[in-house]
Amino acid sequence: MIFRVLTIFPELFDAFWENSIIKRAIEGHHISAAAVDIRRYTSDKHRTTDDRPYGGGPGMVMKPEPLAKAIQAAKKITPFSRTVLMTPQGRRFNQSLAHELAREEGVIFVCGRYEGVDERIFNQYIDDEISIGDYVLTGGELPVMIIIDAVTRLLPGVLGGADSAEKDSFSEGLLEHAHYTRPRDFEGDRVPDVLLSGNHQAIEQWRTETALIRTFLKRPDLMEDRAFTAREINILRKWSTEIERIVETQNLSRADSLPGRE
Amino acid sequence: MIFRVLTIFPELFDAFWENSIIKRAIEGHHISAAAVDIRRYTSDKHRTTDDRPYGGGPGMVMKPEPLAKAIQAAKKITPFSRTVLMTPQGRRFNQSLAHELAREEGVIFVCGRYEGVDERIFNQYIDDEISIGDYVLTGGELPVMIIIDAVTRLLPGVLGGADSAEKDSFSEGLLEHAHYTRPRDFEGDRVPDVLLSGNHQAIEQWRTETALIRTFLKRPDLMEDRAFTAREINILRKWSTEIERIVETQNLSRADSLPGRE
Repeated sequence: MIFRVLTIFPELFDAFWENSIIKRAIEGHHISAAAVDIRRYTSDKHRTTDDRPYGGGPGMVMKPEPLAKAIQAAKKITPFSRTVLMTPQGRRFNQSLAHELAREEGVIFVCGRYEGVDERIFNQYIDDEISIGDYVLTGGELPVMIIIDAVTRLLPGVLGGADSAEKDSFSEGLLEHAHYTRPRDFEGDRVPDVLLSGNHQAIEQWRTETALIRTFLKRPDLMEDRAFTAREINILRKWSTEIERIVETQNLSRADSLPGRE
Repeated sequence: MIFRVLTIFPELFDAFWENSIIKRAIEGHHISAAAVDIRRYTSDKHRTTDDRPYGGGPGMVMKPEPLAKAIQAAKKITPFSRTVLMTPQGRRFNQSLAHELAREEGVIFVCGRYEGVDERIFNQYIDDEISIGDYVLTGGELPVMIIIDAVTRLLPGVLGGADSAEKDSFSEGLLEHAHYTRPRDFEGDRVPDVLLSGNHQAIEQWRTETALIRTFLKRPDLMEDRAFTAREINILRKWSTEIERIVETQNLSRADSLPGRE
């Protein structure tokens, strides 16, 4: 998979390419990645990539020509790439979009800066607009790193322990179960006994329960359209029976304590 | 505002601190920022920060003691900081959470890595759990940069053109209007005449319209709970009248062309 990042701050990526998983993916030839300076594709001596907006107002707008030339040059190397502009207006990046991008031959990322990019670049040069969330950032560089990280993890052979990617949060549509490691006693807080029991079925059951509880409490929206496994359905049924019982008991004792209403 | 980032990859932040706006904010004493290596707070000779999970399974878990010591050390320097763990289970980061963090004296960020952190760290050491979106990443380092970028932009005096931050996407609850800069003609695509008219009222009207159209088409969810200005309401009314007229005309002509149904 080939990533090319068009940016006016290519040096921001230096440390990122040296990052654990990305570095391994590059060295293992799973990905090829480069940050390309858009200034290379300017034609004036000041290498200008931005200009004032027509109609006035504060801030600067990225000029269309250098961007267009940079995209054309990148397309020559990887003609079947998808060209993605990072913008708050794009569709929302999530785990399923990560899977979608992981099926591409390559992605050319365009990092916006300043107020935004000239509107005319969208028509012919951009295949897709993506946003990583509803917040205002200085540029598209950090969002591109986020996407490259998320996508690279999904490529076959990149992660050592094959099922590590599959068990991460959201990969199964639930938050992850709780984790414990040594020491057994940390400041008086002990590891749950079941995890020390060696009973694998009980451990799996406990993990599924903590994943369900966490998701239910912290992110109930994730539970809406999900297809649950038989084990999960059983746990949910058990809870609902238990909750009904508590409510029932409450109603009874409340009825007892109420003044007679005959 | 004081940012301290606890991480096992402090070098990932080197280029980030040198980044345009962050660098300016540090030099202008608007923020103080440092990445601290969690390994400093280990006590074994291998400086171990992770260990295998109790109950078995793939992946490693971050040990509680080095994290606890690193947080305690950071708290000594900035006792009134909020301690934030980056985790997919956290509440969702957005522009209003950025404003909330911008009111803190400081934030201590804890970057998770591997499968996750030992559950027992949450009880006494973490004030807040934050996620930047529903995707699986290798660690909390990139999300922390995203948050520091978004928060720093909001601090008084950091951005040059004071209203530049206010006019960005989401700051007004709408996507931004379309931007154009030179040349007037880019590959046959011309800048809209109104932007060249010098008529400021017409330009403002056009910009409000393009911001509304973009938001309506790309992110209708943003329009749900928003309080609209008088100008915006007028534009929306105009559209709905226009759309009703089109639908009406359609119905009439369709009624004409339908076979008689008496």
